[in-house]
Amino acid sequence: MGRVFAGKDGVIVMNEAAGRRARGGGGSVRRAERTAVSFDVAKFITRNIPNFEILNEEALQIIEYNAETVLEEIGVNFIDNPAALDRWRAAGADVKGERVHIPRGLARQLCATAPSMFTQHARNSDRNVDIGGRNLVLAPVYGPPFVRDREGGRRYATMQDFEKFVKLGYMSKWVHHSGGTVCEPTDIPVNKRHLDMLRAHMVLSDKPYMGSVTEPERAADSVEMSKLLFGADFVDQNVVMTSLININSPLTFDSTMMGALEVYAKAGQAAIISPFIVGGAMAPVTVAGTLTQVLAEVLAGVAYSQLVRAGAPVIFGAFVTSIDMNSGAPTFGTPEAAHITYGAGQLARRLNLPYRSGGSFCGSKLPDAQAAYETANSLNMALLSGVNFMLHACGWLEGGLVSSFEKFVMDADQLGTLHHLAQGVMMDDNGQAMDALREVGPGGHFLGCEHTQKNFKSAFWRSELFDYKPFETWYEEGARDTETLAANRVAKMIGDYQAPVLDEAVRDAIDDYVARKKASMPDAFV
Amino acid sequence: MGRVFAGKDGVIVMNEAAGRRARGGGGSVRRAERTAVSFDVAKFITRNIPNFEILNEEALQIIEYNAETVLEEIGVNFIDNPAALDRWRAAGADVKGERVHIPRGLARQLCATAPSMFTQHARNSDRNVDIGGRNLVLAPVYGPPFVRDREGGRRYATMQDFEKFVKLGYMSKWVHHSGGTVCEPTDIPVNKRHLDMLRAHMVLSDKPYMGSVTEPERAADSVEMSKLLFGADFVDQNVVMTSLININSPLTFDSTMMGALEVYAKAGQAAIISPFIVGGAMAPVTVAGTLTQVLAEVLAGVAYSQLVRAGAPVIFGAFVTSIDMNSGAPTFGTPEAAHITYGAGQLARRLNLPYRSGGSFCGSKLPDAQAAYETANSLNMALLSGVNFMLHACGWLEGGLVSSFEKFVMDADQLGTLHHLAQGVMMDDNGQAMDALREVGPGGHFLGCEHTQKNFKSAFWRSELFDYKPFETWYEEGARDTETLAANRVAKMIGDYQAPVLDEAVRDAIDDYVARKKASMPDAFV
Repeated sequence: MGRVFAGKDGVIVMNEAAGRRARGGGGSVRRAERTAVSFDVAKFITRNIPNFEILNEEALQIIEYNAETVLEEIGVNFIDNPAALDRWRAAGADVKGERVHIPRGLARQLCATAPSMFTQHARNSDRNVDIGGRNLVLAPVYGPPFVRDREGGRRYATMQDFEKFVKLGYMSKWVHHSGGTVCEPTDIPVNKRHLDMLRAHMVLSDKPYMGSVTEPERAADSVEMSKLLFGADFVDQNVVMTSLININSPLTFDSTMMGALEVYAKAGQAAIISPFIVGGAMAPVTVAGTLTQVLAEVLAGVAYSQLVRAGAPVIFGAFVTSIDMNSGAPTFGTPEAAHITYGAGQLARRLNLPYRSGGSFCGSKLPDAQAAYETANSLNMALLSGVNFMLHACGWLEGGLVSSFEKFVMDADQLGTLHHLAQGVMMDDNGQAMDALREVGPGGHFLGCEHTQKNFKSAFWRSELFDYKPFETWYEEGARDTETLAANRVAKMIGDYQAPVLDEAVRDAIDDYVARKKASMPDAFV
Repeated sequence: MGRVFAGKDGVIVMNEAAGRRARGGGGSVRRAERTAVSFDVAKFITRNIPNFEILNEEALQIIEYNAETVLEEIGVNFIDNPAALDRWRAAGADVKGERVHIPRGLARQLCATAPSMFTQHARNSDRNVDIGGRNLVLAPVYGPPFVRDREGGRRYATMQDFEKFVKLGYMSKWVHHSGGTVCEPTDIPVNKRHLDMLRAHMVLSDKPYMGSVTEPERAADSVEMSKLLFGADFVDQNVVMTSLININSPLTFDSTMMGALEVYAKAGQAAIISPFIVGGAMAPVTVAGTLTQVLAEVLAGVAYSQLVRAGAPVIFGAFVTSIDMNSGAPTFGTPEAAHITYGAGQLARRLNLPYRSGGSFCGSKLPDAQAAYETANSLNMALLSGVNFMLHACGWLEGGLVSSFEKFVMDADQLGTLHHLAQGVMMDDNGQAMDALREVGPGGHFLGCEHTQKNFKSAFWRSELFDYKPFETWYEEGARDTETLAANRVAKMIGDYQAPVLDEAVRDAIDDYVARKKASMPDAFV
């Protein structure tokens, strides 16, 4: 059995040398034979600080009223999905063609059956995450077709890149979730790559993961493969995947995404229901207008999930950014995105739904200062806006076109600041430190005092990446910038990586499923 | 007379070609003869968003109680300053040697005569700043002995560097204040450089500035030179300088800084009274302990300013950062610094005092990703913590050892995000955008709609520095990183710079004062 003990920062320290029982596997536990590398894994964040509430009660009521007006008067489209239209009709909506007009109050009423919090299970139960409430779960970047690293530059992503990102996520202390499409493995056929991606998350990591959403059948594969990992009964009764269902903003729900949502809702698996909005293009150019649309879309999407299966776990999603009206490029880390993220958090809490937003967003082509300013702006607003599930929390580059290896570890390191910020201020006697003030007095210094000696190990967050050395030392060591330090860290982590123990029979069953499924279809690349 | 009109962002747009009357000068107005470069200057920020309040009422009361305990029981030292000890004795404190024990309640009572808000005048009255309330005034980096730029690397700062920074501050849209020691001009004797520095702020910029604090006599020079610029009566009746008085934390007030404070308070000029704390060294290693010490020190310092002259304008200062316990280096952009900055803001507001904290803090040696993460963390917390005066708002590098030209313009650009964040969310009909939602409907796009056309110019903040171009364009243009773009921007701004119009007689009087003062003393370099 694994040795598990609480380390500094309330972090769970795992010694990988001591094998752990793999979930859902019935066979013998394989012991790691190599000398193991020990690394820390932090528990998901539970906030002990307030949320930042940018909208007052009157503004919230206006937006809520307007969103219901949008649903009733303008309506939403459910495309190529007669079953969805039937469900809406039966629920009391006014359906004209594919347009669904939802009477004021109906969507909100339907949303009430969605849980305000749920646990997503990982095969290692120490990695389970509770999504909702005051918690914040951090997951890696999702979706880029390209990767970048310092050595190889920018190039199409491959399955090898994908596996490397899964390994980095597994090794990253402050990352709680293995994510989903950490990059698009473009060397694998489009209709088969979900199998390899799921297998990588299941085998190379023991953190929770996301399922496929690109076709309903791929969502079904995700459920089947999860049953091999966790056992069928366990999957029937527990959430083991949280998957990303994007709305085609404005106000459109396509049959691919809704089909995947239907699969997951019926299986009791969680979905993020998320408008995808570049402001000024897919939504009005103003913050209040965008929030109105976001709320209308989420109300309709969450209500629909509850029509499929009342009680299905869902998350109020909001991917929203602004646009550079000069070039048409989406822009990140901007004030308007922050306003929307703060406001959407308030709207989600008033619906008693978990909230997904934020990320390591940036538009920069390089993991340089632009990338870091934009990302830090985004990460800070996400913490204070009450986000419960942060997709894209590390590794995002170039407006989401690129997964960057160096930026992944740079961002993952910064996520530590969110953990410490969220702890709030300790006000017990030790926190008040009156003994230290008495001991040192005017003109003294605190470095040697008893209180400092007792607390210094856990008092201050420190980066494990940045250079804190004196100028002269730094210069002699090669005057390395952050990207260079990050490249070294990526190499070190990949070198240290060891797969978490998994029952061989379970792994064989997963491999067999992947092989059979692949053999059953011709390759498709579009 | 200058053409002044409100541009986008509520920014005042100045056309430098149209001369402006120089304050305090009686002579003729010189007209600019060259073709002028037009640039925007933003008004100081007035927040339309809430402050982030991390401490609850109970925590605030504990800290306030403990701070008074520190003042009464431990006391503070006023070093080499018999007059200060006399003032304290007369006010009712218990003075033992140089230790001043301040009875519970006394310091707070004395602080009550300090104004909650004051106007610092600039020679161009459009640049006046109101310090306090919901406002935020941004001033450049202060104090570094080194400068860095991409071309020349890191080197000792000179007067030429100093002047270049003043020019950049003058040209920077989002920077409201010219600051003080933007770098230490180490090529000028220590006992004379304040004269050249003040002259540069007075002549090369028309924004408000800071006075010298390194000797009481240099503070007196600052007042005298300001009288030449503004007129003696004006200076007697108005605040024209805000200067930085550091406390020797823990709990020590030295005669140099207090001497300068006495000069400024007597002259009715403003002072920031600021603990200078690296946590764990100059204060306890915990947040609540540090806040207790900060409050005790500010209470004592502000109370003393009011003993010198009741009603003297002062600012509750807090320069606080954490320490890397591995290397002993100060660290920046950290969660603990954020906690303290949020908490100190609450304490300042409860004292009805303007609050100074925050800045473009970072420990990095280069204007790279580390610098930008740390800086963005610091700038965001400063906005939300209710800071009224932010020194070091741009240009800080390497823990304050270096003023960086590239980082100055990078940070100055980012300060635009704070302006837009502070505007809050517009909730009028235009903000609600229901017409746009009706016009576009499901599946449409908003780029061409009437509401977007009407609002797009001012809807979204955009960087004037970052690269928003497509990858291919960016690559063809040289794949430039942020530092390279910033170096180009520095060169462009310095090339475009034209001095603001100043009455020649006023400038001659200032030059004459500097020359006479310099001739009256031998050079000193320590």
